[in-house]
Amino acid sequence: MKSKNVAIVGASGYSGEVLVQLLLNHPHAELVAVTSRQNAGQPLAQVFPKFASHPKSKTLRFTDPNVDVLSKQTDVVFLALPHGVAAEFAVPLLAAGCVVIDLSADFRLKSAEVYKEFYAHDHPAPELLKKSVYGLPEFYREEIKKSLLIASPGCYPTSILLPTLPLLKAGLIKPAGIIADSMSGVSGAGRKAELDYLFVECNESVRPYGVPKHRHLSEIEEQLSFAAGTPVTIQFTPHLIPVNRGILTTLYLAPSEHFSAAAGAAKLAEKISACYQAAYANEPFVRLLEGKALPDTKNVVGTNVCEIAWRLDPRTGRLIVMSAEDNLVKGASGQAVQSMNILCGWPETSGLV
Amino acid sequence: MKSKNVAIVGASGYSGEVLVQLLLNHPHAELVAVTSRQNAGQPLAQVFPKFASHPKSKTLRFTDPNVDVLSKQTDVVFLALPHGVAAEFAVPLLAAGCVVIDLSADFRLKSAEVYKEFYAHDHPAPELLKKSVYGLPEFYREEIKKSLLIASPGCYPTSILLPTLPLLKAGLIKPAGIIADSMSGVSGAGRKAELDYLFVECNESVRPYGVPKHRHLSEIEEQLSFAAGTPVTIQFTPHLIPVNRGILTTLYLAPSEHFSAAAGAAKLAEKISACYQAAYANEPFVRLLEGKALPDTKNVVGTNVCEIAWRLDPRTGRLIVMSAEDNLVKGASGQAVQSMNILCGWPETSGLV
Amino acid sequence: MKSKNVAIVGASGYSGEVLVQLLLNHPHAELVAVTSRQNAGQPLAQVFPKFASHPKSKTLRFTDPNVDVLSKQTDVVFLALPHGVAAEFAVPLLAAGCVVIDLSADFRLKSAEVYKEFYAHDHPAPELLKKSVYGLPEFYREEIKKSLLIASPGCYPTSILLPTLPLLKAGLIKPAGIIADSMSGVSGAGRKAELDYLFVECNESVRPYGVPKHRHLSEIEEQLSFAAGTPVTIQFTPHLIPVNRGILTTLYLAPSEHFSAAAGAAKLAEKISACYQAAYANEPFVRLLEGKALPDTKNVVGTNVCEIAWRLDPRTGRLIVMSAEDNLVKGASGQAVQSMNILCGWPETSGLV
Amino acid sequence: MKSKNVAIVGASGYSGEVLVQLLLNHPHAELVAVTSRQNAGQPLAQVFPKFASHPKSKTLRFTDPNVDVLSKQTDVVFLALPHGVAAEFAVPLLAAGCVVIDLSADFRLKSAEVYKEFYAHDHPAPELLKKSVYGLPEFYREEIKKSLLIASPGCYPTSILLPTLPLLKAGLIKPAGIIADSMSGVSGAGRKAELDYLFVECNESVRPYGVPKHRHLSEIEEQLSFAAGTPVTIQFTPHLIPVNRGILTTLYLAPSEHFSAAAGAAKLAEKISACYQAAYANEPFVRLLEGKALPDTKNVVGTNVCEIAWRLDPRTGRLIVMSAEDNLVKGASGQAVQSMNILCGWPETSGLV
Repeated sequence: MKSKNVAIVGASGYSGEVLVQLLLNHPHAELVAVTSRQNAGQPLAQVFPKFASHPKSKTLRFTDPNVDVLSKQTDVVFLALPHGVAAEFAVPLLAAGCVVIDLSADFRLKSAEVYKEFYAHDHPAPELLKKSVYGLPEFYREEIKKSLLIASPGCYPTSILLPTLPLLKAGLIKPAGIIADSMSGVSGAGRKAELDYLFVECNESVRPYGVPKHRHLSEIEEQLSFAAGTPVTIQFTPHLIPVNRGILTTLYLAPSEHFSAAAGAAKLAEKISACYQAAYANEPFVRLLEGKALPDTKNVVGTNVCEIAWRLDPRTGRLIVMSAEDNLVKGASGQAVQSMNILCGWPETSGLV
Repeated sequence: MKSKNVAIVGASGYSGEVLVQLLLNHPHAELVAVTSRQNAGQPLAQVFPKFASHPKSKTLRFTDPNVDVLSKQTDVVFLALPHGVAAEFAVPLLAAGCVVIDLSADFRLKSAEVYKEFYAHDHPAPELLKKSVYGLPEFYREEIKKSLLIASPGCYPTSILLPTLPLLKAGLIKPAGIIADSMSGVSGAGRKAELDYLFVECNESVRPYGVPKHRHLSEIEEQLSFAAGTPVTIQFTPHLIPVNRGILTTLYLAPSEHFSAAAGAAKLAEKISACYQAAYANEPFVRLLEGKALPDTKNVVGTNVCEIAWRLDPRTGRLIVMSAEDNLVKGASGQAVQSMNILCGWPETSGLV
Repeated sequence: MKSKNVAIVGASGYSGEVLVQLLLNHPHAELVAVTSRQNAGQPLAQVFPKFASHPKSKTLRFTDPNVDVLSKQTDVVFLALPHGVAAEFAVPLLAAGCVVIDLSADFRLKSAEVYKEFYAHDHPAPELLKKSVYGLPEFYREEIKKSLLIASPGCYPTSILLPTLPLLKAGLIKPAGIIADSMSGVSGAGRKAELDYLFVECNESVRPYGVPKHRHLSEIEEQLSFAAGTPVTIQFTPHLIPVNRGILTTLYLAPSEHFSAAAGAAKLAEKISACYQAAYANEPFVRLLEGKALPDTKNVVGTNVCEIAWRLDPRTGRLIVMSAEDNLVKGASGQAVQSMNILCGWPETSGLV
Repeated sequence: MKSKNVAIVGASGYSGEVLVQLLLNHPHAELVAVTSRQNAGQPLAQVFPKFASHPKSKTLRFTDPNVDVLSKQTDVVFLALPHGVAAEFAVPLLAAGCVVIDLSADFRLKSAEVYKEFYAHDHPAPELLKKSVYGLPEFYREEIKKSLLIASPGCYPTSILLPTLPLLKAGLIKPAGIIADSMSGVSGAGRKAELDYLFVECNESVRPYGVPKHRHLSEIEEQLSFAAGTPVTIQFTPHLIPVNRGILTTLYLAPSEHFSAAAGAAKLAEKISACYQAAYANEPFVRLLEGKALPDTKNVVGTNVCEIAWRLDPRTGRLIVMSAEDNLVKGASGQAVQSMNILCGWPETSGLV
């Protein structure tokens, strides 16, 4: 299989670190550049000592990001940058012929208006929104194969969309009234020196934030609306909990058909089970839990897997679906590598197991 | 103020430990006995080294629980026992003239049938259900004053009822469709040697459990039904997170009157604010957060305070209410002491600040 | 007992926060001012929501530190400032007649030369070094009573000096070759927005730092030298561990007299036990552990107690002494309040149990 | 390369879990059996949900350990059992022609007397002590190649021996007076349902244990004595800290030659550096840190690497050496796999990077 040269722009944050790890050990991709303005000039292992034992670490040094250099060296460029900044690199890199896999929010939406509403500035490159593909492989695999610009999904959106999209597409749940309650590890806040994310401020603490209008709502609702064929508005509450990595999402959904303990529950359960089996039985990175098992982030951290379990509650008539993922892997860098594997024609699990 | 002799039956668990701490330092109560079958004979400080510097620790030694001895020594007995076992002590202690404050679930429900449904055995003393008072002082203060048997509320119920009851009583929210999503520290599981609660199994993990029918639903729904004047069924999902103490609950509620960003939101907000002010402005142990502040367990752990904040979401028409408490204090032992203060005629905050 | 007005300069850090907590609840001290340059103008409860339920929190607001205002308002001023800055306030406050209790390193040493060697700048007020008293009450109680300037000890020094000084004074250990190995919670690093102290950087991590010449060595060695009557140089290695609060120190000491399993061990053990009993049996804040018990930070966090245990090792001829304290209480703010109690003539345990 | 069939006896503990992970993904070893008395009959993924996505997990099921079955199926058997029990399996498995890699302490010592002194029972198979090889590849690589019984080192011993052995062999440090101070994550205590290792008992806590005579001393001292050519007795204090995985060891050593800031330090530093370079520059799993870097467990957890850094202290004349490893990988299962790679003639890093 032909290998490709890849680069990471903005490699000194937490998702950058996981990208480095995955790409250093990837069987087909060759990591040839890592950039970081504040760490330019430093060897990779000075910023991330854990990579010091990797043979490639000797030759990799952070550089200032330079589009000309990058476009000559590389076939695929990962952008692990803040929104707004990512687009500034994506435009010239695409023009220079690179494939771009963007981990920011810049190309996840189809609507520049919604982008402005949620991100509070004009979209920096609205003409690219038509060309980008939402990099959720389980639903956009064919489009990813043909795309030059992948907008890799956010961490919360992945944990919400994977459990919800199959049910919505199958018409098994109502598009209205969806509630998503999520708990995230602190790496989700990024590697920024801010008081709020100090050890002592996060340890022995749990707190909600961004209530009621978190930015990730925009991409979640756009994708749900596409699936439902009708505009979908959801309730979403993120919470910060004292773990490094992991997101646990609990979803409250209304089945389209009425059921109760006495009637309909078994039949509905069969339909839901069949729907999830059809969607995910052959997916390498979605794990449907069986029996009494419920998702637990410790079973997925460090992997590209999203665990899903569900329960019908005949007392309330609701369907409860729970998911667990590693916010930095399936919720960010692992999923981006999965997209790369697809668009490069490599086995989808390359470097991910 | 006349002091009283108090005892704790089942003092070697986590809520027992907090009871010991509160009662050792209480200005009016004299802790005269602590019992524990497995620790009988051991000095208090051997089981809980942190109390070794307290002057009273020298004379306190765990004993086997004995109703005759307890009833002679003490005016008030706290039961920190598993459900089912608590009733076995409550009956003879009450008969012997003691006031009983029970931290178990045995006397929280008015219905013996519901008890059986949720606890899977016949109620051991159904005749006492009429006499017991649900020990949530903010709503049953007058009844507590006159009662000899207090059923101190569960930790999750306290975190759900305090934010919900005022709104339901005022008719500001619909009784149907309530969802409560809670995250609890591991002390909530008790001090039991079980694999599931080992450090390595809980650390770097978050997981739901008891979905969809947790036992605490029974008392939550009974109290909500009393407040609404109509049967209330709710959705409740508890999660285990890696902190020692603290519960954060996020509630999804439907306001009785429609509102949107354009219309009605400001007026509804005023009503909710007024409702909470009327209920809690003078309550020493409920803190209504203002401005941008949201609850955080680290601000309440070690105190008897429950923090509450709320947001109207004009996008969904919902009211989101969030609460934070220490599951072992306001969610258990602190609230039990608050009830003791009330029924003994002492200032309600005695020994709690 | 006559109460006194007290102020805290630099009250927005972690030791400032604990000082606020202790002084808000102190029976004889009245907290009348809290200063902080970056938080000036904000109510106390905005910076520390946990104090919002305290009655005094309504009237306390952070101010810019102003010596004139402070000296008119207050009898005792606590300085919770970085070294170098503390002296700038201490000089005029003392001149204005205030008692100053300084939690920084500025007045802990008697030698301005050693200060310069370890803190890398000239001492800002060397003339005050003669007047200051090292605020370790167990050893300087009489001097504290008469002093106007207390230099409250550092957290590591307290955990090392309390176990070592009695043995050294009694001649039971050799002054040479002492090794102190300490583990500290992250609050010891202060409330500063730095990458190194982010949750994700500290959680699931343990690391040494400041090897081999940590600044605290200067005051530790000065105090040990005073006790030994000869210059003492020690080995000290601090480690950062993922807890909020607590220091555990393990000391490796050489008994002055030889012993072995066969001979001398029992007699030496008696002498050590008698030495510690003489030093600490009546001290309210030192707890000598008995039997098989070993120190554990969880038994002292939130208290002003230092736990001590020791073992003779006949295999190596060494004495191992272990201590545990809360770095923010006995290691900082609690000890400072203890000194205040002593110099104000109040019971030494006031506000500390 | 010819693959081999391997089995794990006692696979349901924490080192068993890591062995499963490493062997499931090993390029040359085929994991054909996992045994566990309490989990016999359960599929692998029921006990360890994290392996559910691995293709081999479908066919692996825990069985009762049976020597006949194991010896027919497998070439190499890993024993992850308590000491005493391990020998019961090793004897018949060796007799049946299997290679045995034992992670317990049963075959680490050459002296059955020392075994009895430290483990409090007669050695169950003293005749095998001559045949076993201490599985520390950096020092016994040639012996491992020819051995049928590998005694894989303990976690603490590995963290102490790797930094110490080269210096001792080179005569750069004195054999007397060595002190090792270690901090370990809770997985080191094993997967046992005991109160002491509950989340709430370990979180926000640090405590020493096993002072002054921990069992691991026996193998540490035996290996140090072999290297020094003279009996060596050391001081060793383990501490339990709230992390899942990782050991940080700080060693206090006495250089053989005197040095001071003024004289000899630079020359001695060169010798130490040269010694470590000679020992480890080409070792894939020992990382010598450079410049200001100090070991941090978070840089080695999940890898088979041991980080080492050192400092000369001219104030005390001591050499401080610090190491970090993952107690379950380089300290247990990873090192065992490293030995397997060596004895099977596979690249030593197979399945370990």
